[in-house]
Amino acid sequence: MSQYTITVIKSEEEKPKPASDDLSFGRYFTDHMFIQDYSEDKGWHNPRIVPYQPMMLDPASMVFHYGQTVFEGLKAYRTEDGHIQLFRPNKNMERLNRSNDRLCIPSIDEEFGIDAIKHLVHVDHEWVPDAPGTSLYIRPFIISTEAYLGVRPSTTYQFIVILSPVGAYYDAGIDPVKIAVEDEYVRAVRGGTGEAKTAGNYASSLKAQELVAEKGYAQVLWLDGVEKKYIEEVGSMNVFFKVNGEVITPALNGSILQGVTRDSVIQLLKHWDIPVTERRISMEEIYQYHQNGELEEAFGAGTAAVISPIGELAWKGEQMEINQGETGEISRRLYDTITGIQYGVEKDPFHWVVRVK
Amino acid sequence: MSQYTITVIKSEEEKPKPASDDLSFGRYFTDHMFIQDYSEDKGWHNPRIVPYQPMMLDPASMVFHYGQTVFEGLKAYRTEDGHIQLFRPNKNMERLNRSNDRLCIPSIDEEFGIDAIKHLVHVDHEWVPDAPGTSLYIRPFIISTEAYLGVRPSTTYQFIVILSPVGAYYDAGIDPVKIAVEDEYVRAVRGGTGEAKTAGNYASSLKAQELVAEKGYAQVLWLDGVEKKYIEEVGSMNVFFKVNGEVITPALNGSILQGVTRDSVIQLLKHWDIPVTERRISMEEIYQYHQNGELEEAFGAGTAAVISPIGELAWKGEQMEINQGETGEISRRLYDTITGIQYGVEKDPFHWVVRVK
Ligand SMILES: Cc1ncc(COP(=O)(O)O)c(C=O)c1O
Ligand SMILES: Cc1ncc(COP(=O)(O)O)c(C=O)c1O
Repeated sequence: MSQYTITVIKSEEEKPKPASDDLSFGRYFTDHMFIQDYSEDKGWHNPRIVPYQPMMLDPASMVFHYGQTVFEGLKAYRTEDGHIQLFRPNKNMERLNRSNDRLCIPSIDEEFGIDAIKHLVHVDHEWVPDAPGTSLYIRPFIISTEAYLGVRPSTTYQFIVILSPVGAYYDAGIDPVKIAVEDEYVRAVRGGTGEAKTAGNYASSLKAQELVAEKGYAQVLWLDGVEKKYIEEVGSMNVFFKVNGEVITPALNGSILQGVTRDSVIQLLKHWDIPVTERRISMEEIYQYHQNGELEEAFGAGTAAVISPIGELAWKGEQMEINQGETGEISRRLYDTITGIQYGVEKDPFHWVVRVK
Repeated sequence: MSQYTITVIKSEEEKPKPASDDLSFGRYFTDHMFIQDYSEDKGWHNPRIVPYQPMMLDPASMVFHYGQTVFEGLKAYRTEDGHIQLFRPNKNMERLNRSNDRLCIPSIDEEFGIDAIKHLVHVDHEWVPDAPGTSLYIRPFIISTEAYLGVRPSTTYQFIVILSPVGAYYDAGIDPVKIAVEDEYVRAVRGGTGEAKTAGNYASSLKAQELVAEKGYAQVLWLDGVEKKYIEEVGSMNVFFKVNGEVITPALNGSILQGVTRDSVIQLLKHWDIPVTERRISMEEIYQYHQNGELEEAFGAGTAAVISPIGELAWKGEQMEINQGETGEISRRLYDTITGIQYGVEKDPFHWVVRVK
């Protein structure tokens, strides 16, 4: 049996599926999960699809102590004619391996990772919801499992995929959010792990998020960890600004996550001949554009919300309203086009979509 | 039954205990563990000592994805007359709560935490080894357990304590190590989580550690994340330098862990009337002291090794040998005094030691 043969053990019972208007995000999980083990002598081995079940882990497992873990997030979409498709899963597997490298975790076979995801989604295909805006969120992750308290990379790992049906992000079309610029806490710094999708980045973001939520802001806008001047990301999204007809976004600098949605936005803008530039952007600069009436739109981009328009940006006691707090034209066009491609109602000029069986 | 009553379920079997010359670090675990649960409605509840056993966790548990977790490390020492004692456990519980605060984890009752540790060590007292230099390592940790993929603090947690008999850190007296100054990767930055004892800091340190190990260095010396100029820590230890008779150590700045050993070293030096200063120290400055023949000693300080003399420091292609690669006088005096207090053979002028039953 090859290391690429996936054993399937079907669940004896099917869990009840939640109603499509009760899905929210990441709360319900499907009947099955994918697991594969790694050891130094066998490499990645024993890939299997099994009933969704608790994991049994020694309390000394390294993941609990030293956080050596990486993850990904993508979605499966149901088309109008009932097919199921993934959006650019190769980008997620590439990023997973870049994260693995930073965290000293053995790399996975990217093609096989995509196959495993497809196979699992196929087994649980009845869980892909069909109400507008709903999807099946896919969470691949790798954890270090060796029971050892020395600080060094683990010698054993598990690669796991779980699935969660998720609701429409917006109840009624896309809706601008209020964002606060964070100038005390830092998410990531050059030389750190910001470019990797690893647990510690999210743990360190909770405090700032909690503090701005108390003041009524949806997310924080992170500045760079060195000078606290340059814009990095918005919550768990990459960020874009439209200024005088040009779209600008922070250049990838080692501390910003390389979003799949970010890349898709840039490709679409180029395709549409809308000028788009990746460069260093200071918060002061954005403030000046706003003062001069040149800041036309701002939006976050990520798998969860696709495009999240920013209606207000708070910085150093100033409240900057953007586009009268309304969704901008480019934001809407990007949202409609990307979701259109994902759900199979728009042409897919870049061959981003991958069909499941 | 009060929330402070610890239920004890004894293990039916006793595991064989490893030979005292085969202990190494963090590899063997005792017969029992302590667990306590947290939920929003009950707070911390159901403290119990149970047989050491795997944990059953939903694969969506937040700790695997967003790394919301903190830990501590301290030791129990066996005295010559057979008693068991802890070293400043209150400092570890204080730090655990400071880490909790940064990671948005509900705080624990520090007094009760110490009681829980004492109770568990008492149950497994036969596991406290008595060969010279050996001890029982104590690992309290808290993990976020809610099965939910949204990025926000968990609503449920477990506080766990496990125990591991550990060998003498040095086979034959203390032994100087070679350290490489890290100028690419960063452990922590102002505004980040460096001051907290949380998993992500250790995950992010693995890569640099792996790279210097290939070149024959034991650990890295971390520089600050902002300017990469100022000295922070050495591996998992705080760092001290003796220059012209004065001992200097980096001041606590938010990105350095507040070591218990560091604090003990500072108190002892003051007690001995040896000048000691906490301040910002650049690597350039240390290099100049070395060039001028003023750098007399350098050492790391932490629970695992107590004092770890630095025999060589590599920076920008320069190899600085310190004290002819030998253990310095202050390093040895600190090591002998602190371990003497820990094992009950030296007077304990600061009442650092706490006896277990
Ligand atoms: C920190 C961070 N930035 C950006 C993104 C957006 O990346 P993607 O478009 O691949 O979802 C995410 C989430 O996925 C994220 O966690
Ligand atoms: C990053 C780091 N710095 C310093 C220390 C030293 O702290 P302590 O003396 O409390 O063991 C430790 C380890 O415990 C550590 O992990």
